[in-house]
Amino acid sequence: MISTQEHRSEKPRYLAILEENVRAALKVQHVILLESRKILDDLGFVEVLAPVIGPASDPGIRGAKRVTFDFYGKEYKIMSSMILYKQALVRTFNNVYAFAPNIRLEPLSKANSGSHLCEFYQIDLEMRDKTINEVMKVTEIFLDRLLYKVKLHCGDILEKYNKEFEVPKIPFPRISYYKVFLIANKLGLSMNYGDEIPSEIELELSKRSTRPFWIVDYPSGSRGFYYKENPEDTSRLLSMDLIYPHGFGEASSGGERETDVNKILELIREGGENEEEYSWYLDMLKSDGKKSSGLGIGVERLTRYIMDFKNIDNCTAFPKKPGSYTC
Amino acid sequence: MISTQEHRSEKPRYLAILEENVRAALKVQHVILLESRKILDDLGFVEVLAPVIGPASDPGIRGAKRVTFDFYGKEYKIMSSMILYKQALVRTFNNVYAFAPNIRLEPLSKANSGSHLCEFYQIDLEMRDKTINEVMKVTEIFLDRLLYKVKLHCGDILEKYNKEFEVPKIPFPRISYYKVFLIANKLGLSMNYGDEIPSEIELELSKRSTRPFWIVDYPSGSRGFYYKENPEDTSRLLSMDLIYPHGFGEASSGGERETDVNKILELIREGGENEEEYSWYLDMLKSDGKKSSGLGIGVERLTRYIMDFKNIDNCTAFPKKPGSYTC
Repeated sequence: MISTQEHRSEKPRYLAILEENVRAALKVQHVILLESRKILDDLGFVEVLAPVIGPASDPGIRGAKRVTFDFYGKEYKIMSSMILYKQALVRTFNNVYAFAPNIRLEPLSKANSGSHLCEFYQIDLEMRDKTINEVMKVTEIFLDRLLYKVKLHCGDILEKYNKEFEVPKIPFPRISYYKVFLIANKLGLSMNYGDEIPSEIELELSKRSTRPFWIVDYPSGSRGFYYKENPEDTSRLLSMDLIYPHGFGEASSGGERETDVNKILELIREGGENEEEYSWYLDMLKSDGKKSSGLGIGVERLTRYIMDFKNIDNCTAFPKKPGSYTC
Repeated sequence: MISTQEHRSEKPRYLAILEENVRAALKVQHVILLESRKILDDLGFVEVLAPVIGPASDPGIRGAKRVTFDFYGKEYKIMSSMILYKQALVRTFNNVYAFAPNIRLEPLSKANSGSHLCEFYQIDLEMRDKTINEVMKVTEIFLDRLLYKVKLHCGDILEKYNKEFEVPKIPFPRISYYKVFLIANKLGLSMNYGDEIPSEIELELSKRSTRPFWIVDYPSGSRGFYYKENPEDTSRLLSMDLIYPHGFGEASSGGERETDVNKILELIREGGENEEEYSWYLDMLKSDGKKSSGLGIGVERLTRYIMDFKNIDNCTAFPKKPGSYTC
């Protein structure tokens, strides 16, 4: 399903970015960057400049490491995601978004996965007072409009690289974590119930699908401490992933946010995290946490899906890959 | 000239962002972020996602320090500016821009300057085959259109915070570094001919002006190694600063790029820099450097100028100030 037309350059990046497929992907990305903003503005979202460094960052990043450094005598991190900061921002604006850079030192084993970069951008959305279902609905509307605009403005590029690309119908189907677990078992793929779904299984399901789909109802304890338990069934989290079809794998993660500081503190301690790092966030929740839901859509992965590319390094000008120093 | 209406909050940021002046500044910034892109797209620029980390970053940052960290066994930096990467990007697109985050550990003495943040964004423009004069002209057109749009969409906010704000007439006046030097002497302000202009002097000139103005003709050796010498007078650089009026100080720095790798190597060595760090950049120039010119416009400073604010920390959701750990 993934294109074989694509050339993967081993040249230095100042030469690789001259190649037609990288240029084409960057042109599509330009359209994504511009049209996303117009659509999100139209949907009532306020754009903010993403924080890049800070004392606290997202620990729920599936085995990747965060970068730490000394900031005037205190340990700071480069953002692995701005999730905690989005929860602050919805206090002042109902709907916020940022094109947020994320730095994650991925394990070397992911260097050639085709979908992992140590530096990538997310379209990070957050909506105050909204449920996970409302965010899923807005995301579908957003992607529907955006992909329509990409088709409209990048017809010549799609004609060359992804002739069969269609704007997928919304709403996208949903399957539960439990269903994924059953399918994995049936296929003889190893998955522990209660853990995060391994990328291989997401990929296998992605290959078998012709439409983007949501995975919902992750079990409590399987994901980051910031996801709220479903009050109707506390064994499940109000968290979802969006998966691209045709083997392109994960598009997005998100959900509804936990506001109970005691539950969060417990999970931070269980995870062996240093709670002092999260002090402003914990103070905020103690003072009054606001109900919100949101997600992050990886920009390079979205570009890759549209371009039908095997290699995500062709979807960014200066790819940072685990253990590689090309730029 | 700078407003006294503004409240500077000592509250935690999750509370400070609820205050009316911070919300107003962030709303203006949203308009800047959206309208800038529409205008730059219309002017033929392609937006790229800014690199955030890499082996090489801009050393010409006036006494601030760069953050270094270990990237799979090699020393990497957080971008202090993406100047070197823009020079690569114009190889593939004529006109490029990014909203680029910059991290600079400023000296503690600048903590309360009102205009310094350790984390800030620049609208980073670069144009292939263009002269410094052409970039100055495009920047004037860009700012003219953008400020008109801000006035149009943020009339209520300006009415409250900066009632007298007018879109400044273009072209902006230009004065030479030498003229600045003479004025500084006349005012009894200390300035060594050949050094970068001290911020205090820029500020003093800014206070005495009612319009933005350019400073041009910096002496060779006074600025970053990437600026080209004027071929008609090699004692001067093809480099400029844009200064806001009314005491708001520096808006932007830029110029035409040096492409002679030997001249650059000499300056890198003179500056005590490690040339190995710049290897891809030097390789690119050895292979064939492209003529280009560009500049970077600080987004928070632009917001501050429009808002007529004393404190730049009111122009960003999560200000990173030297030696302060509020978020």
